[in-house]
Amino acid sequence: MKIIGERINGSRTRVGTAVSERDSGFIQRLAERQVEAGADWLDVAAGTPAAREPEDLVWLVQTVQEVADVPLCLDSANPVALAAAIEQVQQTPLINSISGERARLEGILPLLSATQCAVIALAIDDSGVPSGVEDRLVAIRRLVDELRRAGVPDERVYVDPLVMAIAANTESGRIALETMRAVRTDFPEMHIVSGLSNVSFGLPVRTLINRAFLTLALEAGLDTAILDPLDRKLRKALLAAEVVLGRDRYCLNYTRAYRARLLNGPVAKESPK
Amino acid sequence: MKIIGERINGSRTRVGTAVSERDSGFIQRLAERQVEAGADWLDVAAGTPAAREPEDLVWLVQTVQEVADVPLCLDSANPVALAAAIEQVQQTPLINSISGERARLEGILPLLSATQCAVIALAIDDSGVPSGVEDRLVAIRRLVDELRRAGVPDERVYVDPLVMAIAANTESGRIALETMRAVRTDFPEMHIVSGLSNVSFGLPVRTLINRAFLTLALEAGLDTAILDPLDRKLRKALLAAEVVLGRDRYCLNYTRAYRARLLNGPVAKESPK
Repeated sequence: MKIIGERINGSRTRVGTAVSERDSGFIQRLAERQVEAGADWLDVAAGTPAAREPEDLVWLVQTVQEVADVPLCLDSANPVALAAAIEQVQQTPLINSISGERARLEGILPLLSATQCAVIALAIDDSGVPSGVEDRLVAIRRLVDELRRAGVPDERVYVDPLVMAIAANTESGRIALETMRAVRTDFPEMHIVSGLSNVSFGLPVRTLINRAFLTLALEAGLDTAILDPLDRKLRKALLAAEVVLGRDRYCLNYTRAYRARLLNGPVAKESPK
Repeated sequence: MKIIGERINGSRTRVGTAVSERDSGFIQRLAERQVEAGADWLDVAAGTPAAREPEDLVWLVQTVQEVADVPLCLDSANPVALAAAIEQVQQTPLINSISGERARLEGILPLLSATQCAVIALAIDDSGVPSGVEDRLVAIRRLVDELRRAGVPDERVYVDPLVMAIAANTESGRIALETMRAVRTDFPEMHIVSGLSNVSFGLPVRTLINRAFLTLALEAGLDTAILDPLDRKLRKALLAAEVVLGRDRYCLNYTRAYRARLLNGPVAKESPK
């Protein structure tokens, strides 16, 4: 499982302030801590109005790259901001995101054709997020056709089946999981990505639901998750799920995490002198 | 998901002592606490030598039934102890367990033919626990044939695919999960049951692995689990998994558990006076 660290997002108050005040120390610490905790990409979202976004996103890219040696996930729907950010990246980025919405498609497809960028493809079109599994697959297939026509190979595409809030519809979790299974079967070269926060929206103790969803999604085909790598319980759940699914050879990652005291500090402590 | 409360097992030191000393208070508190925590059955295992077992198991059955109004899971491989215990039960019990081992089969099949007892059927025969999914299914099919011939209807059978320690074989979790999926497809009227402790044997922070296994097994078809209902984290993981899988209508069980402070005590407290 690969992890996209989600913390550098200007829609979070503290991060938004750091962006507008050009507080590079704050952003860089957030970048370093996420990489240390195992992030494979760092998401960067300026979260500012369209006019300011190119400049802010470029600043974020430059600031993060000074300290972090992982590729970036450029989080914007604005082709101008994305084009400016792509010019600055040191490693091939992941664009977050394209969808079947006509304006988004026309804005972002040319950037993908002209570069080697990978892209997150959302199961949404101009009529919104399709409700059932079959409708969602129709939207995904249409988007995949557009991507292939634009010359984007499948292995550069990260399909996001868009899990919705279970509090609003009991079936939302099941629909997302079944969509993942279908995508894995129909498009074996593509990646499957998901965020975790929508699923638990409106429910108490959301982290508990997020961990269950992550565990089950891993089985259903999720290979990349957008999450907070600093959330220790989530990482523990992920390590355990990989053990149970037979994806952690000799349980090496799990036991290594244990020795690094990431699972539970060993109970026995040095007696104080 | 139905729960078999596993705490009343004479192989646990404290319980063994209570059995030999006829400490009914201790056993009854353990019974009451498990039922309060949601146990649908209570497992009772005397864990004593064959000569003492019938008397001890009968005492356990009588002692538990004085306070608990749930059916019992009679946990013994000894047909004499089981026959004696069956005479005492007030509700149809679950026999734990039968297997394809010849001696066990011949000892226990007659009890099933003569009563309405349900039974846990282990995927094991005289050559041991088969290693792969297909071998395990062969053992299960053979055992199912014997049960059907003895007149035990499928809905009284709880198949236990016997998850082994992942620490000894990275594939063990996956094999158990795939066996569950196959049993669900091949024998849709049968139940699927599993314990949780083997899977994590030999690994650190076992509860973390047990929770991941329970979550994934629920998706694979597990409908009954042998576990410690007093393990709050396990019950929380179970409630969350049922929400994500769309099996908790309107999230009623989950939100009810939250209000009962079983998920996390609400953070806000009454200000003291």
